[in-house]
Amino acid sequence: MGWGDLGVNGEPSMETPNLDQMAREGMLLTDFYSASPLCSPSRAAMLSGRLPIRNGFYSDNAFGRNAYTPQVIVGGISPTELLLPELLQQNGYRNKIIGKWHLGHQPEYHPLKHGFHEWFGSPNCHFGPMDDKTVPNIPVYRDTDMVGRYYEDFQINRRTGESNLTQLYIQEAVTFLEKQANSGRPFFLYWAVDATHDPVYASRKFLGTSARGRYGDAVRELDYGVGEILKQVSKLGLANNTFVFFSSDNGAAKISGPRGGSNGPFLCGKETTFEGGMREPAIGWWPGKIQPQQISHQLGSLMDIFTTLLDFAGIAKPKDRHLDGTSLASVLVNNTQFDRPLFYYRGNALMAVRYGPYKAHLWTWATPEHLLKTTCGFCPGQDVINVTTSQQVDHSDTPILFHLGRDPGEKFMIKPSSPEYQNVMPGLKAIVATHKAQLVRGKPQLNWCDNAVQNWAPPGCEKLNKCLKGPPSKPFKCDWDH
Amino acid sequence: MGWGDLGVNGEPSMETPNLDQMAREGMLLTDFYSASPLCSPSRAAMLSGRLPIRNGFYSDNAFGRNAYTPQVIVGGISPTELLLPELLQQNGYRNKIIGKWHLGHQPEYHPLKHGFHEWFGSPNCHFGPMDDKTVPNIPVYRDTDMVGRYYEDFQINRRTGESNLTQLYIQEAVTFLEKQANSGRPFFLYWAVDATHDPVYASRKFLGTSARGRYGDAVRELDYGVGEILKQVSKLGLANNTFVFFSSDNGAAKISGPRGGSNGPFLCGKETTFEGGMREPAIGWWPGKIQPQQISHQLGSLMDIFTTLLDFAGIAKPKDRHLDGTSLASVLVNNTQFDRPLFYYRGNALMAVRYGPYKAHLWTWATPEHLLKTTCGFCPGQDVINVTTSQQVDHSDTPILFHLGRDPGEKFMIKPSSPEYQNVMPGLKAIVATHKAQLVRGKPQLNWCDNAVQNWAPPGCEKLNKCLKGPPSKPFKCDWDH
Ligand SMILES: [Ca+2]
Ligand SMILES: [Ca+2]
Repeated sequence: MGWGDLGVNGEPSMETPNLDQMAREGMLLTDFYSASPLCSPSRAAMLSGRLPIRNGFYSDNAFGRNAYTPQVIVGGISPTELLLPELLQQNGYRNKIIGKWHLGHQPEYHPLKHGFHEWFGSPNCHFGPMDDKTVPNIPVYRDTDMVGRYYEDFQINRRTGESNLTQLYIQEAVTFLEKQANSGRPFFLYWAVDATHDPVYASRKFLGTSARGRYGDAVRELDYGVGEILKQVSKLGLANNTFVFFSSDNGAAKISGPRGGSNGPFLCGKETTFEGGMREPAIGWWPGKIQPQQISHQLGSLMDIFTTLLDFAGIAKPKDRHLDGTSLASVLVNNTQFDRPLFYYRGNALMAVRYGPYKAHLWTWATPEHLLKTTCGFCPGQDVINVTTSQQVDHSDTPILFHLGRDPGEKFMIKPSSPEYQNVMPGLKAIVATHKAQLVRGKPQLNWCDNAVQNWAPPGCEKLNKCLKGPPSKPFKCDWDH
Repeated sequence: MGWGDLGVNGEPSMETPNLDQMAREGMLLTDFYSASPLCSPSRAAMLSGRLPIRNGFYSDNAFGRNAYTPQVIVGGISPTELLLPELLQQNGYRNKIIGKWHLGHQPEYHPLKHGFHEWFGSPNCHFGPMDDKTVPNIPVYRDTDMVGRYYEDFQINRRTGESNLTQLYIQEAVTFLEKQANSGRPFFLYWAVDATHDPVYASRKFLGTSARGRYGDAVRELDYGVGEILKQVSKLGLANNTFVFFSSDNGAAKISGPRGGSNGPFLCGKETTFEGGMREPAIGWWPGKIQPQQISHQLGSLMDIFTTLLDFAGIAKPKDRHLDGTSLASVLVNNTQFDRPLFYYRGNALMAVRYGPYKAHLWTWATPEHLLKTTCGFCPGQDVINVTTSQQVDHSDTPILFHLGRDPGEKFMIKPSSPEYQNVMPGLKAIVATHKAQLVRGKPQLNWCDNAVQNWAPPGCEKLNKCLKGPPSKPFKCDWDH
């Protein structure tokens, strides 16, 4: 889901009444970013409060490639990372993840081994395989054990787009909230539905109801889900004691065409380090604590969720590691603002940096040539010369500079000969130099693939008679091609 | 000013608090259009309720060229057109125009000869000449007579961007409102400030205050002006009896680069018939009559202002001519919706048609080749193959079809071989055929230019010692090159 998919962010059909209302009741953050332009590293960064380059959610197989956790991946979240739910668990919180985990599916990466008490959802994306019989369909877990598989037990009709999944995830959240309210124990709910991801689905009552086609139907259902959750929080009397945050893990996937969603006025989409790839919709809600109708232009990051939640929960930050997330508590509660740099990584490559309104591209790379031959690419209909390059181009000596206030769409480069450029660039270069000098890279977790590690026989498969036999282990270097 | 310049329409800096508040207190229209992608014809269409092709605000010198009223233009609004202020005047309204008239500057086109009682503003754009001494600077009128000229008596500092003009126009509006409230007579105020037009200016107190540079400063001052006007309407006790409508005459001029404003997710800008050229910000406000927090997706047009205002004023529509505007009274008051086609003209060329969510391009033309050599063009950073063509391309046989709900950015053509295309296109073609068959073109008013007609000696120049001597008349065909 992209920045531009919210009505309050200017999607012309304006079909997110619940998210828009959430923004009116709380704070809309306009300059909020994911730590990666795609799913797995973005989520790992959010739960660890650290850049993928530190927590290991990247690959060194090639320079600047997006890597994630398909079911052939061997790795997952490193045991040395300390995840938000682990810290919350140590402090009496009850933690549940609903939806996509995406931090590895081998036994050691199971979310219940990383701080969550409960899980209903899947370890990988629902995009495939699609019942092709030669590889296992993605399992759906309830807590420790699988309870079925996509396309077998949890239907997604590829032709009609019908699936009840989001409804199941909404019901699961509503039930969990009620249980927690009754228990009186603090809780952490990570509602990570995979709806709006391609192939796009919605339940029957939402199909065909939007002005935006099937993608809009999915957005409407997601929006409905947020409404149901907020309603439940209020109904249970938890509103004054519950912080709710809405965001997305990456920009809209423009490569999916009109089923890919909107990044509003921003350049390109998912997989890229242009604004369309990493600027995210973001809303903070906490009646009584966050004032209504707030707008914040604070540079924020999904990694701040880690730090902000610890702050709100009164839990000390771990001191034994570098955290990239910063607490936004005062931003949210008092609408304060502070300066900080923001780093845009694509895999192991630091592509760009933002400080204040300025963004400097050290490297440019949009859609690789081979993908342009068969798809509309990551920037359909957009072409900024020397910027949306189909090759990796090194601009480290003379970075390409944009002012995101005047030019949020990254269309009009500031000339290197201009006083403005010469005024700003040394500071940006110093920020990059410091970052690079201090950076301790985590061991890359996404280098190796193996058909043997696919979800052949997840725990619980025996009871369901759903165990499959995989091939012998034959690790290979994953081919990350963009 | 473009659709995307409003905070409620997703400009990331969100610096239009007054317009956003106006929208929250009234109705935001998302699918509202100008009748032309540039100023003069758009304004002529609004005040006449008729397409430029009917009211004569176009040129036949070449096919599909944008024509307007620079100071060498001979023509202006045809005497056979019946303008909104004329009808209102006949019904007891007091009418004032503040700002840019742009319907011709020869004596017979003076706004006070076309229904307005009062005027403070200029007949042409402030963009030039800029005190170059070889041609007259644009005059500023108070009512019948000029009271000075731009760059001489009404300063616009091109270097600093400072000008007090918008403040003068705000003060003028506030004073007029007070006078009318005291008189108890009904009134029509056409607040047509030219701020945000290139070269962009703002008053000292707004310069440097926005996150968007000088353009943002101008937007902030315009927004402030709207706030002052609404505040005055309320303060004077007129709110329950006053309909206020905000819109723009064309899309943001993307050719001006970062000083050109934003068309949000839409394609291209001013001068083109893509959504960025003609989709406009639009807000209706009338406390007690228009409910707060309304959003309407009704296809609307600036030409509807003509019809809607007559409707609200209880004045019968003229029956002796075809009107393209339709009353939006019920849309505004009851949030109803109706079907209607919308025609996109560039000069004398019908370029595209919209019906429901579908838009069919009969012709495509973005930036002409010669302009691409020296400017960033009308679609900087955007390039949709076969769509943003630099030549005029005729698609009448197989129009290029977009679904503006799924694809507001006009990026993903619907394949002519698809059932959807085949289902929709016959209806769109029939709408075009009917429109063309019934169309009676007005006599083109924008064919002839003449250096003798420039603002050498406007009425009142003697008193000010500002009369200049022009050359003898030597009419030539205006060269409209795009
Ligand atoms: Ca995603
Ligand atoms: Ca204009």
